[in-house]
Amino acid sequence: MMDPFDDTYFMKRALQEAEIAYQKGEIPVGAVVVIDQKIIARAHNLTETLVDVTAHAEMQAITAAANYLGGKYLRGCTLYVTLEPCQMCAGALYWSQLSKIVYAASDPHRGYEVMGTKLHPKTAVVRGVLQDQAEDLLNKFFIEKRNLN
Amino acid sequence: MMDPFDDTYFMKRALQEAEIAYQKGEIPVGAVVVIDQKIIARAHNLTETLVDVTAHAEMQAITAAANYLGGKYLRGCTLYVTLEPCQMCAGALYWSQLSKIVYAASDPHRGYEVMGTKLHPKTAVVRGVLQDQAEDLLNKFFIEKRNLN
Repeated sequence: MMDPFDDTYFMKRALQEAEIAYQKGEIPVGAVVVIDQKIIARAHNLTETLVDVTAHAEMQAITAAANYLGGKYLRGCTLYVTLEPCQMCAGALYWSQLSKIVYAASDPHRGYEVMGTKLHPKTAVVRGVLQDQAEDLLNKFFIEKRNLN
Repeated sequence: MMDPFDDTYFMKRALQEAEIAYQKGEIPVGAVVVIDQKIIARAHNLTETLVDVTAHAEMQAITAAANYLGGKYLRGCTLYVTLEPCQMCAGALYWSQLSKIVYAASDPHRGYEVMGTKLHPKTAVVRGVLQDQAEDLLNKFFIEKRNLN
């Protein structure tokens, strides 16, 4: 029997968050945090709206998930995010000790992998889930930005 | 003539913030952000109080400084922090493009230097200002914690 709550299901929810960011004129990145097949945090990039470089989707999702759980460690949780985390977000994920990261699009310039950021040794990583959709949305955003300037 | 507003002066203000964290039972790390010899943000570690791994002194200081300036980039600013930043905080400092980081104590285990985190190429770093005072406070905190358990 197929599992309706698989990685693709939750990445679609993260993409919905990225769409909300896009509508706000933010770089379209969205994230959700899941535990026991339940979404406990949703967030999207708000760096322009909040005038704050730390307001990445993942950072807000980590804070919201810890708030929901009443504890700062996210063991047993999975983060779904539409773009590979940066150094800052990977560093926050390191401290959170969360169990799994699933990301859609890679970031070959500023992603944590090319930058060499260390994740917690107990954190598993799955790459490329709904990668095309995430990349299409990011490309649409940057092409439009370029044409406006 | 001696400059009364040198790195030692501002690091003392960061140490005062670390003392406040210590009084709250937090790992004692404090930070201030300075522009044109004026403190525009003060913060101390609040990870336990806020139940949030992202609530490091530097993260809060970056957000507060951007809020003060009305812009998300901290060019022209210096961060004074009593402990070498971690991957997360160094990653946030990278995005902020701030001009200078001055830190007191090194963190040979979790500091950004041993972890290999990249700072912005325009960010200068000064190490070891009031290092002994910062280390003494951290050691006092951890010795007390150990004796309580």
